[in-house]
Amino acid sequence: MSEENKEEIKNEAVENPTEEVTEELTEEALEDIVEEEISELDQARADAEEWENKFLRANAEMQNIQRRSNEERLNLVKYRSQDLAKKVLPSLDNLERALAVEGLTDDVKRGLEMVQESLLNALKEEGVTEIATDGPFDPQLHQAVQTVPVDEEHEADHIVQVFQKGYQLHERLLRPAMVVVAQ
Amino acid sequence: MSEENKEEIKNEAVENPTEEVTEELTEEALEDIVEEEISELDQARADAEEWENKFLRANAEMQNIQRRSNEERLNLVKYRSQDLAKKVLPSLDNLERALAVEGLTDDVKRGLEMVQESLLNALKEEGVTEIATDGPFDPQLHQAVQTVPVDEEHEADHIVQVFQKGYQLHERLLRPAMVVVAQ
Repeated sequence: MSEENKEEIKNEAVENPTEEVTEELTEEALEDIVEEEISELDQARADAEEWENKFLRANAEMQNIQRRSNEERLNLVKYRSQDLAKKVLPSLDNLERALAVEGLTDDVKRGLEMVQESLLNALKEEGVTEIATDGPFDPQLHQAVQTVPVDEEHEADHIVQVFQKGYQLHERLLRPAMVVVAQ
Repeated sequence: MSEENKEEIKNEAVENPTEEVTEELTEEALEDIVEEEISELDQARADAEEWENKFLRANAEMQNIQRRSNEERLNLVKYRSQDLAKKVLPSLDNLERALAVEGLTDDVKRGLEMVQESLLNALKEEGVTEIATDGPFDPQLHQAVQTVPVDEEHEADHIVQVFQKGYQLHERLLRPAMVVVAQ
């Protein structure tokens, strides 16, 4: 556009050679052009500032997206085994029940223990751990399915018996331990 | 800046009142100002264009990041069970070996089959399937650990016996089936 403006100035000078005579008129025309240029300059500068702000916002948003995406990926990786681990837990329960059957031969018992061990190792390697039940009752980790009166052997709010083991993946609960609590 | 320029023009007019006398000098000064304004306008427009381009590039990059991040997330979710599934497979092998032991009582056998079934179901729900071994040998899915001569019962390149089952997660191989092939 500025080239066009220069062109306009030249053209006006060529097309209106009479203006050359009246110095004041030319001056006024030039002043008009200066005013116009200043207004166009203001506009161009406002445009530049607007695009710069848009760029800065887009850049900030991009960094946010990348940060969120990284957090999400780390979380997905950390808890990736959650679904399969949850579904494998009933197999562990079945193994424990099978091992509790009376009169197993040594071969069968060793076989069952081998399966149990390999399954527990697989889960452990993926971050699954058994929930401790040797301390006081914790409603975040234990589910009380029955209560018994406090006696000499069992303090109040302590676990008396475990019906079904509980498990967690890292610090996330997979399922609570089903317990009997002294009250 | 444009306000400053206007100010400069006014100041020059006030500080140099003698210029008012010589019309040609004022005209030249105005022409200089026009030239200067045009050059500043060019600069401002170039700046605006540069920031616009930077914004457009940042915007395009942002969309790329989002697309890649979505693809990555879908992939992470689809194959999330890969590691645990791989580690659970030896338990299935142990169960099969335990079930092959002679003289199991019905109770023990039922117990073992229950564990096996629940484990296979857990894996199946997560997208794990057993690799078929009833067709021709496929080096993408089967590993030949032994070969036997072709006979009336077994065609060339067909699987005669399975030493260890293979598994895949969706279309991704977890481990190949270990097989004996007729050749």
